[in-house]
Amino acid sequence: MAREDQLIERVSRQFPFTGDGLKVGIGDDAAVLRPAPNKEYIVTTDAFLENVHFLRKVHPARAVGYKAVARATSDIAAMGGRPRYFFLTLGLPDSCTETWLDGFLGGMAHAARRFGMLLAGGDTTKYPSVIASLTILGEVDRGKAILRSGARPGDLLCVSGTLGEAELGLQLMQRKLHRQKRWTRLLRKHFHPEPRLALGQWLAAHRYASCMIDTSDGLSTDLGHICKASGVGARVCASKIPAVKIPPELRRKGFDPLRMALHGGEDYELLFTMPRRFSSRLPRTISGLRVTVIGEITREKKIVLIGPDGISAPLQPGGWDPFREKA
Amino acid sequence: MAREDQLIERVSRQFPFTGDGLKVGIGDDAAVLRPAPNKEYIVTTDAFLENVHFLRKVHPARAVGYKAVARATSDIAAMGGRPRYFFLTLGLPDSCTETWLDGFLGGMAHAARRFGMLLAGGDTTKYPSVIASLTILGEVDRGKAILRSGARPGDLLCVSGTLGEAELGLQLMQRKLHRQKRWTRLLRKHFHPEPRLALGQWLAAHRYASCMIDTSDGLSTDLGHICKASGVGARVCASKIPAVKIPPELRRKGFDPLRMALHGGEDYELLFTMPRRFSSRLPRTISGLRVTVIGEITREKKIVLIGPDGISAPLQPGGWDPFREKA
Repeated sequence: MAREDQLIERVSRQFPFTGDGLKVGIGDDAAVLRPAPNKEYIVTTDAFLENVHFLRKVHPARAVGYKAVARATSDIAAMGGRPRYFFLTLGLPDSCTETWLDGFLGGMAHAARRFGMLLAGGDTTKYPSVIASLTILGEVDRGKAILRSGARPGDLLCVSGTLGEAELGLQLMQRKLHRQKRWTRLLRKHFHPEPRLALGQWLAAHRYASCMIDTSDGLSTDLGHICKASGVGARVCASKIPAVKIPPELRRKGFDPLRMALHGGEDYELLFTMPRRFSSRLPRTISGLRVTVIGEITREKKIVLIGPDGISAPLQPGGWDPFREKA
Repeated sequence: MAREDQLIERVSRQFPFTGDGLKVGIGDDAAVLRPAPNKEYIVTTDAFLENVHFLRKVHPARAVGYKAVARATSDIAAMGGRPRYFFLTLGLPDSCTETWLDGFLGGMAHAARRFGMLLAGGDTTKYPSVIASLTILGEVDRGKAILRSGARPGDLLCVSGTLGEAELGLQLMQRKLHRQKRWTRLLRKHFHPEPRLALGQWLAAHRYASCMIDTSDGLSTDLGHICKASGVGARVCASKIPAVKIPPELRRKGFDPLRMALHGGEDYELLFTMPRRFSSRLPRTISGLRVTVIGEITREKKIVLIGPDGISAPLQPGGWDPFREKA
């Protein structure tokens, strides 16, 4: 059976030890980091747990490792930051310390390379199921982090990419349709979400965004978070929302694109607000990613959806909340 | 039932929101920290799991919260650093979201105040048992962090406090003797370990220590870690080890002080090495904490224990390793 130091060696093999700004990495009591001048640090922490966030029988180890890193990194994107280092707390059953672990770490290493991060430390423990907690440390130019609290009445409400894609993949899985080859491409975002780092950094560098969040819990819930933090309301136009495209056959089975776009979680798109005066400067795509204006911020502290029929109705948060009973 | 935002409010109530260097704390996508000039950051992460590190039936919620913070903070002490911020990932059963959580957070808040830290962020999830992962971010003057890798042949090997106290408490519990009032004081270190922050910072400031680690896994194992990292061996004198005092009645039951001092984990004392030329400058106590020379570092890469009878024998690691089978 693997000993802890053998496990740490297994981890270390997949990740370079030290790098720019990282004076001491894996293998000491703690990591030592040298902050760059005129930068602020952005720190976020995120749990990724078997049977809560993934199923070991369904999700390949490599996808689990990739997604654990991508999810957590999305919080850095949502502040306009650049991810630099990450730390991994990992609980593992004995049965997962070899092949499964190599796949999991391979997925993490792939994500870390793509997003430009080093693994700087962690902690491993034996546990009956797989539990992971990631801490990501990123950087941003001093004073340029984009908070949730800066939205002002009149600001435009914008979102990147397409909403509801991850929820579509999840529902295909929940309805056991995911093994059908023709739907494979619809699973992509559920397995491989993409933190919108380039867009976040572009918005921070230009100071165009007045507030920002990533859509981890779903548009209706995450819009609620920024409205609450900013002390404002919002009006969203359903016909403007870039909702997931759903093949007719699945629509007939009850898959509803607007519902998925409004309430589906885990898209990890960026939802941000922008003063109107910048609207002419916003390209339609940034680093190849579409950006869509879907509504505006209002003084009245309510969130209203103008439906496809033109009728307004309150938009209730319907996204993911781990502590809420399912309806 | 509690919703996630209600839980976050429950957490926030026990902790101040922002402070020195913390620009954005709980409630945004991530925390924003402004590094102090001429400092390096020290970062460590540590899991604290029900049924692995504590038992909900035995350990009061407040003690669990305190110990989760104290254990993780000890890694900062072991680098000579000053803890500044911490981040909490928490999985909780429904039954723990009220009274138990308040006790747990109360213990954490007590520890955070004592050690001078702010809670800067976290993540909460529903989970069948209590799982916590802490990330601690500390500070040290540039270039002054004390690593595991600096021990040199001829250096003196020193340890703080008393070894085996936490193991004594653990064994009293395992043998169901912990409810007897006369042994209550012997449980103190198991429930309330004390990271040796003042000693670690003193050693870093004076640059007296050539290497350092905290005794989380037990002297025999932790000494192995520093010898491996430094490429050296060590000779330890059993009669010099400041072993836990054990009442005669418990000795007759087989409680062995030397065994506990050598292999018992969770004391969180500091084990460090020091060039001989500094030995005359080392006070016998530092901030009220006794420091004892227990041996020396050798060129030969073996760890040898000179027993109470004067006979030398190899000292095998016998401490805590979550992935090793119990002997």
